[in-house]
Amino acid sequence: MPSLRIDGHTQVIAHLGYPTHSFKAPLIYNPYFAAQNIPAVVVPLGCQTEHFEPMLRAFFKATNALGALITMPHKVSVLGLLDEVSVTAQVAGACNAVKRSADGKLVGDMFDGQGFVLGLINKGLDLKGKRALVIGNGGVGSAIAASLAAAGVDSLRLFDLHTPNTQALAQRLAQHYPDLHIDVGSDDPSDQDLVVNATPLGMKTGDPLPMDMTRLSPHTHVGEVVMTQRITPFLAAALEKGCPIQVGTDMLFEMIPAYLEFFGLPSTTAQRLRDLAQLEPTH
Amino acid sequence: MPSLRIDGHTQVIAHLGYPTHSFKAPLIYNPYFAAQNIPAVVVPLGCQTEHFEPMLRAFFKATNALGALITMPHKVSVLGLLDEVSVTAQVAGACNAVKRSADGKLVGDMFDGQGFVLGLINKGLDLKGKRALVIGNGGVGSAIAASLAAAGVDSLRLFDLHTPNTQALAQRLAQHYPDLHIDVGSDDPSDQDLVVNATPLGMKTGDPLPMDMTRLSPHTHVGEVVMTQRITPFLAAALEKGCPIQVGTDMLFEMIPAYLEFFGLPSTTAQRLRDLAQLEPTH
Repeated sequence: MPSLRIDGHTQVIAHLGYPTHSFKAPLIYNPYFAAQNIPAVVVPLGCQTEHFEPMLRAFFKATNALGALITMPHKVSVLGLLDEVSVTAQVAGACNAVKRSADGKLVGDMFDGQGFVLGLINKGLDLKGKRALVIGNGGVGSAIAASLAAAGVDSLRLFDLHTPNTQALAQRLAQHYPDLHIDVGSDDPSDQDLVVNATPLGMKTGDPLPMDMTRLSPHTHVGEVVMTQRITPFLAAALEKGCPIQVGTDMLFEMIPAYLEFFGLPSTTAQRLRDLAQLEPTH
Repeated sequence: MPSLRIDGHTQVIAHLGYPTHSFKAPLIYNPYFAAQNIPAVVVPLGCQTEHFEPMLRAFFKATNALGALITMPHKVSVLGLLDEVSVTAQVAGACNAVKRSADGKLVGDMFDGQGFVLGLINKGLDLKGKRALVIGNGGVGSAIAASLAAAGVDSLRLFDLHTPNTQALAQRLAQHYPDLHIDVGSDDPSDQDLVVNATPLGMKTGDPLPMDMTRLSPHTHVGEVVMTQRITPFLAAALEKGCPIQVGTDMLFEMIPAYLEFFGLPSTTAQRLRDLAQLEPTH
């Protein structure tokens, strides 16, 4: 594999968040940049809450700052620091990609949900007019809901143990998608075309399942965001039911081409990114 | 060659300066980090004067900020932003390495001159009691003068077309090395054990030579800082006289082990760094 070459012509994408230890982006973008001789690098910068605004602003003063990937705990707070925010990021209530426009404005967008949706579309699921349940309405769940709405689903059932998350997401969806049927407060997966686990449940051994799997029909597509293992207990239960599934890393890789385009870099396929990535294999 | 791997455990050394195009440090440090599996990376950040202080301070708030390499145009101004500055950096009047101490202080040092001196020592020149002429008393010339003084030369002849540079350097030297013979205002290389070109003369075709080469004795060691080509016109003239020479990149590579130690990283030899570096060959 070609080695990543960093020189005085390299443009920098800062990956801002804290803690940094679980950052995956550098291990996906950089091998691709190396393979394609793209003069760019993703660099993790561990950034705690109180330092975020000065670090973001100072970074974008760098003449070779190409963009920033924003992750926990700044995905929501960053919205208040930007000059322009896409509709999807507004509905998601979060933003994890920032670039500087030609006139110096900070512009934010959010493609996590688009990665999830593209993964489904690539598996042959036509989302138009469909019914979907999103469990977990924090950052990632909101991003997925925003992209499902943009993809034309007919109804969204939203559930989160922390109800203010659900209420806020429903309100943002209603504002931008007045024809969408929004149904809050139930986590019943029956009669849904798609159910999504957008909670962290499944990251730790012994976590409960995010929904009642006995009520799941075999025709329901089941999507996961947890990627600590490929087949989480949730996905294993879905497979037992005979449901088609989407693993957590599908979303991860499918979103990258959208981010590359946002940053003005040559794009590629999710599969090529996956082939090049330096991630440890999940099992 | 092993590929540079950047992940959530990688510590970052920011290379701050402007313009960035001629930066060499990333091409020397990073291949070594890759070869040794050292979880660190040198990343260029183009930084113009008005943004330097906020960028430096914000960078050092990053939890994985290991240090900064400071280059033009900030090598001098950075001194005023630091909590502790080494004697060599004080005499040099410039600093190009900053780290954060355990108690959060910004600590600066300067090893450029030490690289130059180590190169000479490795060529068998004992500097104790010797006479040296340093032409060009800006940042790099001052650093070399500071390290020559520390290495025990008996006299330093200083010359710069911009005389305030020379006066300021002479004053700083006199303060820290009261027994050193300092002689300013002459660029005569005769009767010197060592002469150094620390001006940019030689970077451009048609530049005049930095000193009157007809007055040079064959026993005089001749050192160069220009590294746009291996044998500059100055070094070519010295070779014609039969003088022992030191090329510009010797200083470059000899200084790196000192910087690695400063940043608390495993060190190595200048030769190994040179073997691994991704610099274009000079000719």
